[in-house]
Amino acid sequence: MRPTLAFDADDTLWHNETHYAETQEAFRALLRPFHDDAWIDARLHDTEMRNLGSYGYGIKGFTLSMIETALELTENRLDGAGLRQVLDLGKAMLDKPVEALPGTDEVLAELARTYDLMVITKGDLFDQETKLAKSGLGNHFSKVEIVSEKDEATYAAILQRHGLRPADFTMVGNSVKSDILPVLALGAQAVHIPYHLTWAHEVVASPVESPYPVLDSIRDLPALLASW
Amino acid sequence: MRPTLAFDADDTLWHNETHYAETQEAFRALLRPFHDDAWIDARLHDTEMRNLGSYGYGIKGFTLSMIETALELTENRLDGAGLRQVLDLGKAMLDKPVEALPGTDEVLAELARTYDLMVITKGDLFDQETKLAKSGLGNHFSKVEIVSEKDEATYAAILQRHGLRPADFTMVGNSVKSDILPVLALGAQAVHIPYHLTWAHEVVASPVESPYPVLDSIRDLPALLASW
Repeated sequence: MRPTLAFDADDTLWHNETHYAETQEAFRALLRPFHDDAWIDARLHDTEMRNLGSYGYGIKGFTLSMIETALELTENRLDGAGLRQVLDLGKAMLDKPVEALPGTDEVLAELARTYDLMVITKGDLFDQETKLAKSGLGNHFSKVEIVSEKDEATYAAILQRHGLRPADFTMVGNSVKSDILPVLALGAQAVHIPYHLTWAHEVVASPVESPYPVLDSIRDLPALLASW
Repeated sequence: MRPTLAFDADDTLWHNETHYAETQEAFRALLRPFHDDAWIDARLHDTEMRNLGSYGYGIKGFTLSMIETALELTENRLDGAGLRQVLDLGKAMLDKPVEALPGTDEVLAELARTYDLMVITKGDLFDQETKLAKSGLGNHFSKVEIVSEKDEATYAAILQRHGLRPADFTMVGNSVKSDILPVLALGAQAVHIPYHLTWAHEVVASPVESPYPVLDSIRDLPALLASW
């Protein structure tokens, strides 16, 4: 059996957090007459965390949290036109083209010769399927797993479902919390490729000396794997 | 290999459309000062259909469509408190307990002795996982497929992924469009158990004489299957 190489999607295969950052800047601009930036950011983050149990991850839940935060921060004084703008910010995110990170297409084509390639991504099923289709990268992958949470139990279930041993499974992603630590805990391999932005919810303290490989770009992945 | 019996979830295993109907009545009540019921319903349905390509199926998309419709129908005059009510209607739907249809638990327990039981449901990944967990029925199923659309291609992919032949696969559900016709088209079996409400988007013309079995209740399913 060929070994499996699994990739996170958002901010590993394509740009994602930049869209959230741009949207959040537009949201701040809308509420700047009412509050300062730091307060707006903090309240939006609180709303997102409070709603995570009801909405899960993804753009639709983020949009609903922006609307809720806007109403809260303006004590319901933001008018209909302003709320319409928030709604449109969310739609614009959903309708944005998906921009693959540099080198992704070539590197996946090369690695597909040696590995079974899998996508393991967290979030909204419909969003993620749409993004994979729009990215043009879908044909490189033989398996796609869209999950609601990326913890040790999720990865264990995926390995079991596909009959994979930890020794034959390597995960590649930008989030230490979601892509690296739970995979290492199962005795499988993980490679960290940081993205220049990290969502506050995903930030964990970095170990002084990293016990897993950290790469600057997906372009460095084939050489690393060849050295194993 | 044991034959597979797959079930739709919303309105087949548990009540769902009733929650949408109740929510829609509350939404109408909110907008009644501005428009009559038929017009409100028609505009909400239009908004949902227009947004299906961006939002997909599920409560979060429905909530965003209610907000959009409310702004449209009031020309942005619905105030913040009113919009907050719409947001809360959506949250109340998400937080509602999941009420299994009568007989479901016993019938599934009985059928699990002979069949591999599967759930195949359309909608939001996070919502559907949450509902399955809340329903208390999850332990009867060996496989769960949450998909963004239920058409022939989706069912063909599921059969292939699990190595199932159409002859060994039977789908049970309340939607002729999503649960019955695409399954019959693949040469597999399907059983229709109508729910007393059907979402307008799922309505198709009923054939004069049904070419598939139609049951009043899941309680009649074991006897039907035993007769095959």
